[in-house]
Amino acid sequence: MARRLSFRACLPSVALCEGGNKVEGMRNPEFNDRGTTIMAANGNIEQGLEFTPKFDANGLITAIAQDAETGQILMKAQMNAEALAETIKTGRAVYFSRTRQKLWKKGEQSGHVQKVERILVDCDQDCLILKVRVSAGQCHVGYQSCFYRALKKDSDKHLEFIAEKVYDPKEAYKK
Amino acid sequence: MARRLSFRACLPSVALCEGGNKVEGMRNPEFNDRGTTIMAANGNIEQGLEFTPKFDANGLITAIAQDAETGQILMKAQMNAEALAETIKTGRAVYFSRTRQKLWKKGEQSGHVQKVERILVDCDQDCLILKVRVSAGQCHVGYQSCFYRALKKDSDKHLEFIAEKVYDPKEAYKK
Repeated sequence: MARRLSFRACLPSVALCEGGNKVEGMRNPEFNDRGTTIMAANGNIEQGLEFTPKFDANGLITAIAQDAETGQILMKAQMNAEALAETIKTGRAVYFSRTRQKLWKKGEQSGHVQKVERILVDCDQDCLILKVRVSAGQCHVGYQSCFYRALKKDSDKHLEFIAEKVYDPKEAYKK
Repeated sequence: MARRLSFRACLPSVALCEGGNKVEGMRNPEFNDRGTTIMAANGNIEQGLEFTPKFDANGLITAIAQDAETGQILMKAQMNAEALAETIKTGRAVYFSRTRQKLWKKGEQSGHVQKVERILVDCDQDCLILKVRVSAGQCHVGYQSCFYRALKKDSDKHLEFIAEKVYDPKEAYKK
């Protein structure tokens, strides 16, 4: 079962955030920062004002970066507790790279950072939205958003481009 | 490793979509509809026009519902191959409920359906955006969006409401 922790209490013991299998709907029992069981009503998670992000079995939570100005969804990534804490602390989006198995400070190489204006959380607290300000393309392929293709009408197989590249990734990542 | 299939070929053998552990970055080898190994360059996945959604080890892909008119992110859910096929076929959002382990036709009980205008996919094809038209609140708690709370400024623990309820869930779900 995924563990839900008081986020502040969760740090810096990230290991505590990594539980067993994630089972939706099995919200109780939850675990506190000492790994002991506590009972928390769904109502508190959904209607309360305590931030208790639900990290999955791998200690990760989904984060969606959305342009604060245009509403465009820029990308979807994962955060571990450390990445989330770093994001809150620095005001710049920091994710967790599953490929590299380490913190990924967005824009560290390309310079295309995300300035975080606000962090929203959903009803069951297993997904975050980062409302961000950006000044350059956010997708490593060269587009403003990672979502630069759409399914063609009446097709379940063919995509079409819906955007044009806004920068040359070869230039941005050669540094 | 997660398997990536030609989506059409994937159906109706959903079981084929359920692979082992998901390892980002290990895109090759991929699997075709017979479960045999094929080589596919990242470039094709990222820059090509074939829709090859990447289902995770549980056969699921993340889908974000975004209001086509306002740009508001309404909810995040999961789809299996069958839910995705049903969504494409019917033009109404169908998800996979991990709680109930079955297809979840959005609005089946509440009537708060999502009419899908367009489906976008991201660079590595492991996340979808559904651009939807809605006529009622989309969160089961009673809000238009599931993201009705935000972290308070300078806090890593306290949330604040950023929306008001738009319907009474007790009424909508009593049917």
